[in-house]
Amino acid sequence: MDSNTSIGIFDSGIGGLTVANAILHELPNERIIYFGDTAHLPYGDKSASAIQYYAKNITNFLSSKNCKVIVIACNTASAVAYDLLQKIVPKDVFVINVIDPVVEYIINKGYKKVGVIGTIGTIGSNIYKIKIKEQNAKIKVKQLATPLLASMIETGFINGQISQLIIEDYLLKPEIQDIDTLVLGCTHYPLIKKEIEDYYKQQNLQVDVLATNEIVGAYVKQYMISEGIIRYEKSEEEHQFFVSDYTETFAQTTRMFYGKDIKLEEARIFD
Amino acid sequence: MDSNTSIGIFDSGIGGLTVANAILHELPNERIIYFGDTAHLPYGDKSASAIQYYAKNITNFLSSKNCKVIVIACNTASAVAYDLLQKIVPKDVFVINVIDPVVEYIINKGYKKVGVIGTIGTIGSNIYKIKIKEQNAKIKVKQLATPLLASMIETGFINGQISQLIIEDYLLKPEIQDIDTLVLGCTHYPLIKKEIEDYYKQQNLQVDVLATNEIVGAYVKQYMISEGIIRYEKSEEEHQFFVSDYTETFAQTTRMFYGKDIKLEEARIFD
Repeated sequence: MDSNTSIGIFDSGIGGLTVANAILHELPNERIIYFGDTAHLPYGDKSASAIQYYAKNITNFLSSKNCKVIVIACNTASAVAYDLLQKIVPKDVFVINVIDPVVEYIINKGYKKVGVIGTIGTIGSNIYKIKIKEQNAKIKVKQLATPLLASMIETGFINGQISQLIIEDYLLKPEIQDIDTLVLGCTHYPLIKKEIEDYYKQQNLQVDVLATNEIVGAYVKQYMISEGIIRYEKSEEEHQFFVSDYTETFAQTTRMFYGKDIKLEEARIFD
Repeated sequence: MDSNTSIGIFDSGIGGLTVANAILHELPNERIIYFGDTAHLPYGDKSASAIQYYAKNITNFLSSKNCKVIVIACNTASAVAYDLLQKIVPKDVFVINVIDPVVEYIINKGYKKVGVIGTIGTIGSNIYKIKIKEQNAKIKVKQLATPLLASMIETGFINGQISQLIIEDYLLKPEIQDIDTLVLGCTHYPLIKKEIEDYYKQQNLQVDVLATNEIVGAYVKQYMISEGIIRYEKSEEEHQFFVSDYTETFAQTTRMFYGKDIKLEEARIFD
């Protein structure tokens, strides 16, 4: 694939913009095409087969727009649709999920007791546990589904008493004790990374909190360099941001995840 | 339509089971066919045109199963799709939304300062305000979107410190002060009716809290009696509960909304 094509990034909604932002931070010359499946958001409580169907349609849409790389910027979709998507894309298109880079990072850093929080879909798939154990069976992996966190963030309850209590309520659960690192296994969670770090500090616990968007951004850069598909000159084309269902509310909250205002376009690929 | 056919009820998810439950409480002889559009849940933050498309497909599905009445057990869909659905159903099928019964109740009771809480979609549509003012322009209507409440309830955060703080955070907002009644404009909210009543008691405020499912149940009964389509003998057919996307999590939470265990069937009418 011509290196002057785009990086496709998709998520169930606008949370994946944290990943888009991290990728552009690492690779400022690239042009991205983002697709947020707001018609089916959230993926966290959908079935695996439904998510596979959505992911396949989105991947075809992004392939049709000439993407050299497609990043599944959603943990739930990475967990249940990555293998399928690898099979359906053209041979010269690379599919990257958000889980493998984090697993590689954990192995390299030598963590021994890993905690993972995420949606019901991600945690129910056991994907982090399976992929970490494949690399090193001795690493302990503890998991907890934290389904209220994504809505809490989306509705603006961050950095306050309520978010603090909800975070505490989840992180005090026995399932997720005695860990040396905590994977924030959902694209929304980088927005509460500091609150979670503060919680552990208050508890006098030494737990490294991993924001997966940053790790994925660095991984995508290395991967593209090694495949020789990086741009050395800045793209002149503007980024594009598609959603499967447009509403004002989504438009208003993009800034929270992306850091600046963007123009959302509607692409009703499912109707 | 033969009175020995069924009552169709639909919602974006399983919240509408509170309405199904209230209808069966009033009309124990009837047989219901429920459809929860879990593939597109929640409707609260979808666009009007997307919800109209979903509602139309579901209504066709219920019509094909011989329903004499179709109840839109979702405030957001009632707000944006009721007029459309009335046009597309066969002439002998009655469509009932969850908003008109509540407006009628408010007028009959003589409330003067009405508060409404609901999803972004319901509140953004101004539907309660418009319909109440049509009946009596002197009634004051104050509204507030409370988007975290539905997820809070779905994820089990009820009757505790966290739900109490979230409820307080919303109900203390200036938009919703000085009211004599509060409409719980979302099918999930009956589950926190008592918590909301307790909040007003603590504040020494006299506010009647209206659970719309009970009002709708009583309305459907009266409506069906007046149209002569009520069953006088108990249906021998079992109720049916369909969802557009089946997951274990939905199956496990039905009890919370319906009061007892039910068997969910998947009907992938959108794939």
